[in-house]
Amino acid sequence: MTKARPVLTFWFEFASTYSYLSALRIAPLARAAGVELVWQPFLLGPIFKAQGWDTSPFSIYPAKGRYMWRDLARRCAELGLPQLHRPDPFPQNGLLAARIATYGQGADWGPEFVRAVYRAEFAEGRQISELDVLTRILNELGLDPEETRAAAQSDPVKSRLRAATDAAQTRGLFGAPSFTTSDGELFWGDDRLEAALEWAARPQS
Amino acid sequence: MTKARPVLTFWFEFASTYSYLSALRIAPLARAAGVELVWQPFLLGPIFKAQGWDTSPFSIYPAKGRYMWRDLARRCAELGLPQLHRPDPFPQNGLLAARIATYGQGADWGPEFVRAVYRAEFAEGRQISELDVLTRILNELGLDPEETRAAAQSDPVKSRLRAATDAAQTRGLFGAPSFTTSDGELFWGDDRLEAALEWAARPQS
Repeated sequence: MTKARPVLTFWFEFASTYSYLSALRIAPLARAAGVELVWQPFLLGPIFKAQGWDTSPFSIYPAKGRYMWRDLARRCAELGLPQLHRPDPFPQNGLLAARIATYGQGADWGPEFVRAVYRAEFAEGRQISELDVLTRILNELGLDPEETRAAAQSDPVKSRLRAATDAAQTRGLFGAPSFTTSDGELFWGDDRLEAALEWAARPQS
Repeated sequence: MTKARPVLTFWFEFASTYSYLSALRIAPLARAAGVELVWQPFLLGPIFKAQGWDTSPFSIYPAKGRYMWRDLARRCAELGLPQLHRPDPFPQNGLLAARIATYGQGADWGPEFVRAVYRAEFAEGRQISELDVLTRILNELGLDPEETRAAAQSDPVKSRLRAATDAAQTRGLFGAPSFTTSDGELFWGDDRLEAALEWAARPQS
């Protein structure tokens, strides 16, 4: 009897600043921990709305926002990532990108698409809601941009993204990045990535 | 010419859950890093009020609150701290304790008083607003409880605590624990304790 590899679900939202760090860090760390990843896009908008927020808390609470940009820049430096570009406007509209990522779940190109969108947003300062930006990324991945976009905007894919957002809320997610294990543990924030992988990888009784 | 030892200011609020972790962890880490600590009590109430909150965000946002208690319990286990006791009510009223800690700043007993209050609150489940609890702690530290309490509630000490809270706000603090360095860097959260010490200790140009 072979044991199933442990699984960690990585919940990300393209507008989320700290999700950028996790998206760029997670793959080699998961490999080293022997953990299989589910790359799970979702939308924070509906979840924030349920908390009474109509935009990012970093925009609503200026002191927290100012700190976040400084902390993120420091973390980028520590992690050897390119100098942080603060997206303008912030938060970016990541809906189309999230639909493409949903369509790409399980496909070989899925994780690389996610990383490329985050790099465009936070390392290159591009507008990830712009078709041009997403078209360039899809081209670089060897995909047909028109076709991919049409598939990503089909009803079944839209429904899957909505269902993922509902599932996130049901599981108690309130921010991104978040990580969930098959035994129901929730970890929030890039700072908990290592702890989440460790939890997922530990021997089940 | 001898160089001054680097200094890190540790901003804590007695109602703050993650400040408990930092208060119990910080002294040996600072010693190992060669960093001198300033134990700085302050009050989050006025800062939260300025953000439109009349209590802890963990009480205002239930999903975030549920997560925090679980995360804190996990962190206590990881750090080898006693099993977490969730204070009831939460948040606790830490005003008198903060005044005593302000009075004890720079005194030998200061840090041990802070740790004892946090242990009473989060490891023993005591009410830190109760005189009995604070009296027991002061007794154990070999202090005269009556005398200490009277000094802590004198106008100069009250003013110092108010001034510290104002200074926290001016420096951009929005939560606890926070850490500030002499060159003006701000770090927020127990997860940034190591980074803050590293920043404080790095050679100045």
